[in-house]
Amino acid sequence: MMKLNRQSTILCAACALVLSATTLQADDPLPSWNDTKSKTRLLSFVARVTKPDSPDFVPKSDRIAVFDNDGTLWSERPVYFQALFVFDRIKTLAPDHPEWTTQEPFASVLRGDMRNALAGGEKALVEMVMATHAGMTTEEFEKIVADWISTAKHPETGRLFTEMTYQPMQDILAHLRQNGFKIFIVSGGGIEFLRVWAERVYSVPPEQVIGSSIKTRYEVRDGNPVIVRLPELNFIDDKAKKPIGIHQHIGRRPILAFGNSDGDFEMLEWTTTGKGARLGLLVHHDDATREYAYDRDSHVGRLSRGLDEAASRGWIVVSMKNDWRSIYSTTGTADTNQIPSNETGDPSVP
Amino acid sequence: MMKLNRQSTILCAACALVLSATTLQADDPLPSWNDTKSKTRLLSFVARVTKPDSPDFVPKSDRIAVFDNDGTLWSERPVYFQALFVFDRIKTLAPDHPEWTTQEPFASVLRGDMRNALAGGEKALVEMVMATHAGMTTEEFEKIVADWISTAKHPETGRLFTEMTYQPMQDILAHLRQNGFKIFIVSGGGIEFLRVWAERVYSVPPEQVIGSSIKTRYEVRDGNPVIVRLPELNFIDDKAKKPIGIHQHIGRRPILAFGNSDGDFEMLEWTTTGKGARLGLLVHHDDATREYAYDRDSHVGRLSRGLDEAASRGWIVVSMKNDWRSIYSTTGTADTNQIPSNETGDPSVP
Repeated sequence: MMKLNRQSTILCAACALVLSATTLQADDPLPSWNDTKSKTRLLSFVARVTKPDSPDFVPKSDRIAVFDNDGTLWSERPVYFQALFVFDRIKTLAPDHPEWTTQEPFASVLRGDMRNALAGGEKALVEMVMATHAGMTTEEFEKIVADWISTAKHPETGRLFTEMTYQPMQDILAHLRQNGFKIFIVSGGGIEFLRVWAERVYSVPPEQVIGSSIKTRYEVRDGNPVIVRLPELNFIDDKAKKPIGIHQHIGRRPILAFGNSDGDFEMLEWTTTGKGARLGLLVHHDDATREYAYDRDSHVGRLSRGLDEAASRGWIVVSMKNDWRSIYSTTGTADTNQIPSNETGDPSVP
Repeated sequence: MMKLNRQSTILCAACALVLSATTLQADDPLPSWNDTKSKTRLLSFVARVTKPDSPDFVPKSDRIAVFDNDGTLWSERPVYFQALFVFDRIKTLAPDHPEWTTQEPFASVLRGDMRNALAGGEKALVEMVMATHAGMTTEEFEKIVADWISTAKHPETGRLFTEMTYQPMQDILAHLRQNGFKIFIVSGGGIEFLRVWAERVYSVPPEQVIGSSIKTRYEVRDGNPVIVRLPELNFIDDKAKKPIGIHQHIGRRPILAFGNSDGDFEMLEWTTTGKGARLGLLVHHDDATREYAYDRDSHVGRLSRGLDEAASRGWIVVSMKNDWRSIYSTTGTADTNQIPSNETGDPSVP
């Protein structure tokens, strides 16, 4: 076994200290946030749970942070982006389903009437998901999603959907990771839809993505094993099911939860009522100029109970308008570091 | 932001190299294995997938290894240890269930007749699990398991059950971790039973434990949220369901799988038929002196198809008798480094 001499050992220890100090002392870990109270509270929480001499210190293994996706990490308007994927799949598959031209909700999709297609609520959505997300192997489905996510454009901004993640949230993910947090996405969206691109876009590996799922079956086809996607619901990861999904996948209670709608209420409640230092945060979509403004009566991302109870529960309500210096991340775009001028909340920022 | 000067940067880079070389060149990463072909093949696989210039190199993020638990990481005789936990729970709860004195399989348990209690197969086992593992909160259940696992003793060896993990497997877990693998336990046993002690005993955190589960429900009791365990099966993580459990929790295909019974067949099949370098291993219980000898007609841990197909599939069949220098790990015992003389396969080893 190779041995280090005493001098090398001391030098290496010194280098380790310098390197970690360099990481920790970066000027501003959240550059796309304005210097408001939300930012201060967030940074203060991370400092409190990571400083070894802090009364609120949390060991690294328990630094679990959970994030909703739609409306929290990326936009969700005019409808959840996965619904747009469903619509595109229906259009692609339509030639094999002549009955869809008269059968709802498919007929509305083919006419381009999104609102009407979704008017049937969860029942209609599940029907469309089963018709488009099942019947193929998991590998085939991954390829379909990968192709779509790398080419489909948002109907209003013209951006790739992965260019509509929020830079302030990317800042938080990076800051938490630098401070030893393990980050999980806990989404009402499809787990297999998210996993295809979450690692590239958020640096969250597949095993740290939790979401809704359909059942699958293991099959050996001519000696080649495959996992086949079945048209049967397995788990809907929303509302009071989010703590269940967290418990199933993670097996311990997070200390930080970030959401944006009442679908995230129980996830924040479960996270913030545990012992020790806890933090709950809600993105409030109040920026009609740079993104969208909606909350209480919204058809997507409704936030009502969360707004009512945030103050008494000590949750931070993050104002996109006031707290965020920029909105969309430039991940995956050509101009990787430039923030478009119309997205700069503070005119003094270049 | 603090900057490193050029000299410090070079020194730090050199130190990083020295430190990693030190780790990789430890004398023998598997000291409790005899120097047989199984050990050579295992070490050679790890070297091939981790050396950057190897044609079989696998990036760190894809170095996923899955391990069965019962009969692979710890013993499973005379019956699965969790069944002994179930029996102890039935005895504890019996005063509240006078009907159990005549009702099977409970009556057999109370008479101490383990074989008869399990004669009803899965149906009887599920019935006993529901009567003993449900009806409490997850926190309450964790405490019950923690108390049991820290005090209950094996009926034949008199050891704590956590003292019946296999040292050669602990060696592999450590070696794989040092080489950037992420280790998951994929067990037919209860996920919540395992998670209570897997981190302490195997250094596998709860979020990397996959197992069978019952359904749960989120509830708020007087403002205090709890997750309640329900008497309803959620998932049986065995046979063709193991690849499904892996897919649900990990979302990518492992490159190494280690099992011991036909319940692990599909997990090994799924793992080893993927593209690139793959390794499947089976523990063969052939050591009647130091542990137990069983395979084809066993009531627990039956290994038949695996033995038939291992050679043609390139799986390593590990002989406990010939390949393992010691059997039980000393984790959690007072004599932490001593291997009892009767457990030393090679008489030249002190």
